[in-house]
Amino acid sequence: MQKILVIGAGRSSTSLINYLLEHSTQENWELTLAEKDVSLAQDKINGHSHAQAVSFDVSNAEELEKMVTSNDLIISMLPAALHFTVAEKCAEIGRHLLTASYLNDEIQSLSKQFEANNKLLIMEMGLDPGIDHMSAMKVLDRIKEDGHELTAFETFTGGLLSPDEEKENPWQYKFTWNPRNVVLAGQGFVKFIQEGRYKYIPYHKLFRRTEVIHIPGYGYFEGYANRDSLKYLDLYKLRGINTLYRGTLRRPGFCKAWDVFVQLGATDDTFEMENVAEMTHRQFINSFLSYNPNDSIELKLAHYMNLDMEDEIMYKFKWLGLFSDESIGLEKGTPAKILEHILKKKWTLDETDRDMIVMWHKFNYLENGEAKQIESHMVAIGDDDTNTAMSKTVGLPLAITAKLVLQGKIDLTGVHTPTRKEIYGPVLEELEQLGFEFSERHVDPT
Amino acid sequence: MQKILVIGAGRSSTSLINYLLEHSTQENWELTLAEKDVSLAQDKINGHSHAQAVSFDVSNAEELEKMVTSNDLIISMLPAALHFTVAEKCAEIGRHLLTASYLNDEIQSLSKQFEANNKLLIMEMGLDPGIDHMSAMKVLDRIKEDGHELTAFETFTGGLLSPDEEKENPWQYKFTWNPRNVVLAGQGFVKFIQEGRYKYIPYHKLFRRTEVIHIPGYGYFEGYANRDSLKYLDLYKLRGINTLYRGTLRRPGFCKAWDVFVQLGATDDTFEMENVAEMTHRQFINSFLSYNPNDSIELKLAHYMNLDMEDEIMYKFKWLGLFSDESIGLEKGTPAKILEHILKKKWTLDETDRDMIVMWHKFNYLENGEAKQIESHMVAIGDDDTNTAMSKTVGLPLAITAKLVLQGKIDLTGVHTPTRKEIYGPVLEELEQLGFEFSERHVDPT
Repeated sequence: MQKILVIGAGRSSTSLINYLLEHSTQENWELTLAEKDVSLAQDKINGHSHAQAVSFDVSNAEELEKMVTSNDLIISMLPAALHFTVAEKCAEIGRHLLTASYLNDEIQSLSKQFEANNKLLIMEMGLDPGIDHMSAMKVLDRIKEDGHELTAFETFTGGLLSPDEEKENPWQYKFTWNPRNVVLAGQGFVKFIQEGRYKYIPYHKLFRRTEVIHIPGYGYFEGYANRDSLKYLDLYKLRGINTLYRGTLRRPGFCKAWDVFVQLGATDDTFEMENVAEMTHRQFINSFLSYNPNDSIELKLAHYMNLDMEDEIMYKFKWLGLFSDESIGLEKGTPAKILEHILKKKWTLDETDRDMIVMWHKFNYLENGEAKQIESHMVAIGDDDTNTAMSKTVGLPLAITAKLVLQGKIDLTGVHTPTRKEIYGPVLEELEQLGFEFSERHVDPT
Repeated sequence: MQKILVIGAGRSSTSLINYLLEHSTQENWELTLAEKDVSLAQDKINGHSHAQAVSFDVSNAEELEKMVTSNDLIISMLPAALHFTVAEKCAEIGRHLLTASYLNDEIQSLSKQFEANNKLLIMEMGLDPGIDHMSAMKVLDRIKEDGHELTAFETFTGGLLSPDEEKENPWQYKFTWNPRNVVLAGQGFVKFIQEGRYKYIPYHKLFRRTEVIHIPGYGYFEGYANRDSLKYLDLYKLRGINTLYRGTLRRPGFCKAWDVFVQLGATDDTFEMENVAEMTHRQFINSFLSYNPNDSIELKLAHYMNLDMEDEIMYKFKWLGLFSDESIGLEKGTPAKILEHILKKKWTLDETDRDMIVMWHKFNYLENGEAKQIESHMVAIGDDDTNTAMSKTVGLPLAITAKLVLQGKIDLTGVHTPTRKEIYGPVLEELEQLGFEFSERHVDPT
């Protein structure tokens, strides 16, 4: 009997836990679900005979030692900042560890210790990062193995609403992942390479420099650039490539409307606003507009942003209740925290809402001097607000990898991300069997 | 014989030192000019019988102790970050200290020690901060003493070019103070109060939300808001005021053109650019523009910024050489550092260039229920690139204050800024005698 410990039983763990429970009898696993709020863990395992729920606080070193020691493989769904504590303990005692968070230098430094104990730590094993690495590297490696010269790689991912849910929502968007990260997305300076030139976009221009992407069967999307594409030069072994661009997908029109928040300064997270407890939605918007007692806030906003009063963006703002006299309902906050709070009132999934994950890659290469282009994409739709596409695409790569590691099918030790064929090969294969499949086609090079 | 120590003999010390030398015989002073580069100090004192130049390193604690001990009053022209070391020593030994830098909590904490030694530390005794505090408080105090109700206070200062020097320079601007501070000006989030409402402007909108100001005899200026006007609520005892706004003056058209740098991201100081050693001015601009092999960089810039190709801003950029193939001449740098380096090539004062300081205040108040408005302004013109208006308006308040303190005419101890009448009264009086006078007039309230 092999023992698996999952730390964290929040929303994002749903699909991960379901997969592990489903396979536990056949694989002869015993699953422990550790969570501060033990009732949350109990709900998730629902009396399953191969599983137990335990109350757990990762900051208690003694508890952590005991939990790690008594399991063979640990999956951490904790916030990213807490992973090092767990990783250090797994390195010391010698246990496998999987997470969906970004690898950093601190965690990389544990690699030798994992190797010495013949154990494996895989980071970035979710959706983005995770499936993006695996599905990109599969094609990138194949192009290289075929002896072709890669010239450009672009990749976009979006957590969106299923087309069925978009109709009444002019933003065609709700939060399907950490809302705070959505509000702060893109802050800093964007860097990428285009046709051999380093290019830079400041945050306040980011949402106006989008690309249009069409996905057969799903229509049009727009993509804005992620913060740092340059680090993928080394991660994907792409030094010398002419174009490298990573981005995020939204439905058309979203970015131009979101840009109004950026232009106002409503996504700023650097200072606390005054008098928040007494502030209404309408006053929040007004605090970023000039004083002018003769004009309405709507008119001032439209004028400031160079919009017609009838612009679709004005309707998007109205739909969110941003012009209403409703109280914000916070005691204090930065503009970003207040905006997040207002947006949650409309952008939280209803019980029956279904989300959608879209991932799209474009590969350009030269085959005997001839320009070629491959586009590939994956679309996943959620079942409801619990079994979301997000929860599946983040949780299943972790769950599948756990199975493969315990079956001895991944012959690696040390610290890794799933850019290696030994990992992405078998994981993508099972994801395909579960319906998470990339459609690939050759198109005329653009 | 009283002994004065001036630490720092750079450009900004010229007028300060000249004043002290001129008064040294009559006042029976002995002046010591301490500077790392002793030849700089020797040039400044030019063999004067009441003065000596010494080589001095403030980081040498023993030297510092000796220098402070052997003088009665110290004036520090060091960079702001080094003032605490000097202030601590003056507090301990018991010596007067004057600087033109901002007061902070660390320095404020020395107040009791200065009091115990019956000595005075005055911070913020230059132009801005300095003359701004004094000239504003003089009118603010008078309005209060007369029993009127203050409703609004706005104040703007600019370091500009004399109108004679503006003609061939489409920006009507050169650096007359720390260039780095000019390039980074306004970064962060601007806060002020207008008609009782807190208002916020993000950096990327700051240079498009200017006010027009007219000064009789000097024409039109535009003003953009300084970062935090709210701290002056307490500093000037203005709690309850409806409008409080502090800003910086430029000639009309400057801000809209400067905003192009802001929009491009060329003033960002958060990341190092790639391949700076090989970069030309033209490539620097292009790195912020989209890739498009069919359009010129000029056309891409005009299109991106929504300008005609014939726009005055395009000419301003051309005049600065921003479209040239000239090498930047730096090995590395952030966008802000590179921009500063390029701008210095055109924006450095020639020997005969004369600068201009403009300060403007507007006071609104109710006199028996009737709205009243006072505007006051001061303009100072430099002699050349050494005896600048900036050097005079920063240095003379320090020099005059030194004289008044040594004459026993300022009856205060502890740590202060010149918002107190005991300080601003006599200092403004002598500044007026030297020609630095505010013109004040009543105008129809706006």
